[in-house]
Amino acid sequence: MNIRTAVLTISTRGSRGERDTDASGTIIKEMVREIGCTVNEYAIIPDDEETIVAQLRYLTEKVQAALVLTTGGTGISATDVTPEATLAVIERRLPGFEEAMRAAGFNKTPYAILSRGVCGTCQKSLIINLPGNPKGVRENLEAVLQVIPHAIRVLQNETVADGDHGFPGPTD
Amino acid sequence: MNIRTAVLTISTRGSRGERDTDASGTIIKEMVREIGCTVNEYAIIPDDEETIVAQLRYLTEKVQAALVLTTGGTGISATDVTPEATLAVIERRLPGFEEAMRAAGFNKTPYAILSRGVCGTCQKSLIINLPGNPKGVRENLEAVLQVIPHAIRVLQNETVADGDHGFPGPTD
Amino acid sequence: MNIRTAVLTISTRGSRGERDTDASGTIIKEMVREIGCTVNEYAIIPDDEETIVAQLRYLTEKVQAALVLTTGGTGISATDVTPEATLAVIERRLPGFEEAMRAAGFNKTPYAILSRGVCGTCQKSLIINLPGNPKGVRENLEAVLQVIPHAIRVLQNETVADGDHGFPGPTD
Repeated sequence: MNIRTAVLTISTRGSRGERDTDASGTIIKEMVREIGCTVNEYAIIPDDEETIVAQLRYLTEKVQAALVLTTGGTGISATDVTPEATLAVIERRLPGFEEAMRAAGFNKTPYAILSRGVCGTCQKSLIINLPGNPKGVRENLEAVLQVIPHAIRVLQNETVADGDHGFPGPTD
Repeated sequence: MNIRTAVLTISTRGSRGERDTDASGTIIKEMVREIGCTVNEYAIIPDDEETIVAQLRYLTEKVQAALVLTTGGTGISATDVTPEATLAVIERRLPGFEEAMRAAGFNKTPYAILSRGVCGTCQKSLIINLPGNPKGVRENLEAVLQVIPHAIRVLQNETVADGDHGFPGPTD
Repeated sequence: MNIRTAVLTISTRGSRGERDTDASGTIIKEMVREIGCTVNEYAIIPDDEETIVAQLRYLTEKVQAALVLTTGGTGISATDVTPEATLAVIERRLPGFEEAMRAAGFNKTPYAILSRGVCGTCQKSLIINLPGNPKGVRENLEAVLQVIPHAIRVLQNETVADGDHGFPGPTD
């Protein structure tokens, strides 16, 4: 299974080229490779709500990415607007992904409760907000990584679904 | 305490008689008996949002069921619309029920994070979305079962409540 | 760090002077002292949605409290309206605080899932709904207490934030 994937790093300083490396973006690219993702799109954009919304719409509608992973802007600073932008784009929210990621983070540091990361679907795309911190990215993504291929298959209609399988096994 | 209960199986195939047995509905009926529920209403309806909304309104307004348990349609297939229908009917959401059920499921299988089941109240009725999978039904319902009688008593005003008892003990 | 704090006990009986002591309010005042809070405002008000909204607006806009802690009215009785009042005032919701508090409560008693407490920010203020029950207050507040000073610093702009630090360490 080849999962068409987009990685979106949301960082005003990063978008200005004021950061040497995008450690979090790099970690995401490495981690998703092991579940069969091909990263077709990658961008660093500023913490601007309209810009993020436009980019998410472009990735889901034009690029038709099956998976969109964002990093950054999920905290409670005045500049953190990734959750608001994501809520404006998704059609169905996936609270289970959000809870599992925060619970995984919370096991490591109480500061994980500050993350407001949103997960949801827009048409056939799965959008996941990861925190900006590289360690947080790794912990959060690990918590949901193995479920992503099945979720993508269901969204892309590659799995027969009766609507009455709440959480099917990997072979359903 | 006798709890007037409705069980609603949401499955397009089931509603057409294309499934031999309703394993999940049967499990629910057995499990709720031990907390004093009498299942007065039981139906199998298709994964159609309007039909589910109409049925939930009928069960809460006309039947005045104290407890409405649904199974099915909580996943992320295009046909899964139970959470949307339930959100259209409830007045107050109960995130604690949703979190506890998903956390219980997540302990068994990571796929539990895909469940978007909603819980909430409508007038004096408690509505709980369970997944469609029989194993998921059992794990989810077990996670909240013992709290249901107290919740029903509070909703039916059979318990004195000052509004300042966040989570009273069973004898409150 | 001195955190300007308001404690709001929400209890109709308490507001009429029909309760000897406000045990929950007292516990909150003691607990927040250890993280550098100064309780500048304290009131007992009835379980009336408009009154709670007005009081929350007063505390965030006029008093400019950095931290507003409420106790009471988070359950599912018809009189419990604290979550609705809080949702009307906050601009950004903090699901991580809510989940961590409920999970902590759930470890002690399954009845914790009945709490609908809301957490969020309004301008530079952090608002946290605690349950009414003294034991519940202690368990819930303990679950998030150590994160509060950092959250306040970020909200008050006393910490440099790029918007790409999902959950920074205490020294960020």
